[in-house]
Amino acid sequence: MTHPRDIKTLDPSPRLLMGPGPVDVYPRVLRAMSTPMLGQFDPEFTGFMSEIMVLYRNVFQTQNHWTFLVDGTARAGIEACLSSLIQPGDKVLVPMFGRFGHLLAEIASRAGGDVVTIEVDWGQVFDPGQIADALRQHKPQVLALVHGDTSTTMAQPFEGLGAVCRETGTLFYSDTTASLTGNPFHVDELGLDAVSTGLQKCMAGPPGTSPVTLSDRAADHIAARKHIEGGIRPDGYVQGNGPRISTNYLDLAMIMDYWSDKRLNHHTEATSMLYAAHESARVVLEEGLEPCIARHRLTSRALRAGLTAMGLSLFGDPDHRMSNVTGVIIPDACGNGEKLRAEMLNDFGIEIGTSFGPLAGKIWRIGTMGYVCRKANVLRCLASLDATLRRNGVTPPANAGIDAAYNVYAEVDQ
Amino acid sequence: MTHPRDIKTLDPSPRLLMGPGPVDVYPRVLRAMSTPMLGQFDPEFTGFMSEIMVLYRNVFQTQNHWTFLVDGTARAGIEACLSSLIQPGDKVLVPMFGRFGHLLAEIASRAGGDVVTIEVDWGQVFDPGQIADALRQHKPQVLALVHGDTSTTMAQPFEGLGAVCRETGTLFYSDTTASLTGNPFHVDELGLDAVSTGLQKCMAGPPGTSPVTLSDRAADHIAARKHIEGGIRPDGYVQGNGPRISTNYLDLAMIMDYWSDKRLNHHTEATSMLYAAHESARVVLEEGLEPCIARHRLTSRALRAGLTAMGLSLFGDPDHRMSNVTGVIIPDACGNGEKLRAEMLNDFGIEIGTSFGPLAGKIWRIGTMGYVCRKANVLRCLASLDATLRRNGVTPPANAGIDAAYNVYAEVDQ
Repeated sequence: MTHPRDIKTLDPSPRLLMGPGPVDVYPRVLRAMSTPMLGQFDPEFTGFMSEIMVLYRNVFQTQNHWTFLVDGTARAGIEACLSSLIQPGDKVLVPMFGRFGHLLAEIASRAGGDVVTIEVDWGQVFDPGQIADALRQHKPQVLALVHGDTSTTMAQPFEGLGAVCRETGTLFYSDTTASLTGNPFHVDELGLDAVSTGLQKCMAGPPGTSPVTLSDRAADHIAARKHIEGGIRPDGYVQGNGPRISTNYLDLAMIMDYWSDKRLNHHTEATSMLYAAHESARVVLEEGLEPCIARHRLTSRALRAGLTAMGLSLFGDPDHRMSNVTGVIIPDACGNGEKLRAEMLNDFGIEIGTSFGPLAGKIWRIGTMGYVCRKANVLRCLASLDATLRRNGVTPPANAGIDAAYNVYAEVDQ
Repeated sequence: MTHPRDIKTLDPSPRLLMGPGPVDVYPRVLRAMSTPMLGQFDPEFTGFMSEIMVLYRNVFQTQNHWTFLVDGTARAGIEACLSSLIQPGDKVLVPMFGRFGHLLAEIASRAGGDVVTIEVDWGQVFDPGQIADALRQHKPQVLALVHGDTSTTMAQPFEGLGAVCRETGTLFYSDTTASLTGNPFHVDELGLDAVSTGLQKCMAGPPGTSPVTLSDRAADHIAARKHIEGGIRPDGYVQGNGPRISTNYLDLAMIMDYWSDKRLNHHTEATSMLYAAHESARVVLEEGLEPCIARHRLTSRALRAGLTAMGLSLFGDPDHRMSNVTGVIIPDACGNGEKLRAEMLNDFGIEIGTSFGPLAGKIWRIGTMGYVCRKANVLRCLASLDATLRRNGVTPPANAGIDAAYNVYAEVDQ
């Protein structure tokens, strides 16, 4: 067994992370994490918490007061929202078009929800009318819908669903971890009640904190379930009428008390991750959401033109691809694609991804997200992939991928 | 409302964090968080995960294979352990001697446990015989016991309890967030089955990740409850017989699959926090656990000698104080102590803490933990506190605190 004295300073090889995430973090965000600690009730620190609320209202495009961080990776934000919204026995509709739909169904079920799922094949999305029909048929208390499912690279259209949820008395939750700030997503215009995300995709921050936003309707629903834990409960405090939330750590009612003027202690805020979230949002908002989304769109267009010109086939419904990750069908000559992926990583230092479940070994996923999402990386990736394919029995037309990508940029530059 | 463009680069005032934590982070650990990302299945990254397991076996002083990180603050580690150990209806014994005993009882109850509590006044600890008696009386499935409760500054003695738990068929869990590496705690010698901690106290890392360790007995118990989520479940996978764990994010059975050679994806590891945990452990182990604990003991002895010489009274049972945080009874002249605390923070840049529940406004808590735990900070704190007390109607004998602290160091230096 390794002796601890043989464990050296962290010194990872340089990588270009063009998988499904995490991706390279903006250097500004990496540096922000080295900011010294503050106490969790230091007025300067609670000031930073208030700034986070402002920043993420803009990132989410919402007026929601309750916009804050859950201290865990994106999955923690999902579970915090679903466990806090879903009361045992509630009907929950989960349309599934990839792995993360399965995850929402799983979490909803553990929260005690009576889960109804509808499914399309991986690589497709739902027509919003199908989801509307299911809402009207089942009248669920909660609709839980992934926006962009990285497992399939697809983005689900949401048009009209917010209004139907109002009609059926349904709270509308979405997981936007994979898509936010790389694809259009306007929380208030879409009529959402709860949304969670992560930093490690288009926001180019590290995984480890999950921004969430709640409508007043959702916040009121959750507040009715507030049960303040013993040991910090103020004298005479009246607990909520609703059933207690099954998790303490991810109990949004108590977390909101910590993010409110009451500053009632729950957990110790993950200071360095809050710093990262602060700087990630500043980077995105300084660029502007529209230009950031446009950059993702252009970059994936160039990448896809290149891949197609190389004779590769793209995966999934072409009308509903996310702008930040591209599925490529692995050519037969490459088997399950793992040998090529290892060569890309070990020899070129470029990470691309495989997928899960029915798509494992069937597609590669190439991410163009956040800091990585730029022309130089598209060209590097295409040149390296071209070279690697040739060593694996696939012969794309000479320089075709690079030329096609250049052409996309040439159109824009005119 | 603040406009996001008015939100500037993080630039906190310099602080000396001598509260109950978080405390100043070792500069080496702050820098480690700026290490570039790696993909979560990159062999270099999974190598770092394996190093984490080795490092924390040494920190916890255990041979337990299952020693890894839960991605959230210390409370996430507590909930992961308790929710994964406790099956609905299980009897859970929680001896409470402060706020964090209440927290364990709360989390155990939300996990479906039939919780039996025993209590002593805040400032006291249990005689281990009292806990042994309760174990023999109730024969609980789980004993959940805080080691050091920061709310009261007390450390509970554990001697003999591991053996009694074996006798009564009880799984023995402890929360060591506040105490580990500042106070002796030998997981295997004490016969523990599950232990969780945090970085933000004696390990002088940032809050946001929670190292845990599980005995084989605990790991087997948890594995029997494994239910792999849909979307990533391998073909033909047989689920566990035990009741499914109520949380997905904090499901240790699935998290162990991610930390095993299977590397079955659960959440995306919080990369930067893992880097911090790696460097925090290296710092502690390079110093050595014994010298690190001795440093905490000496520093708190010097601080306490100083405080006592200033005429202040220390809080709690003198035989069972933690070596890293000191409770001081707030002198009558200082009311609830908040004005002095604000002056210490705003004018001297030194944070000291108040407490919770029955101790709010009754005691200050002064931490001497990790990087902060050194002579210069004891002297700065005592000098600043002396000056601040004088401006608040308390007149310690001139220079008495400083002289007494110097004397403690003089004894050692001889």
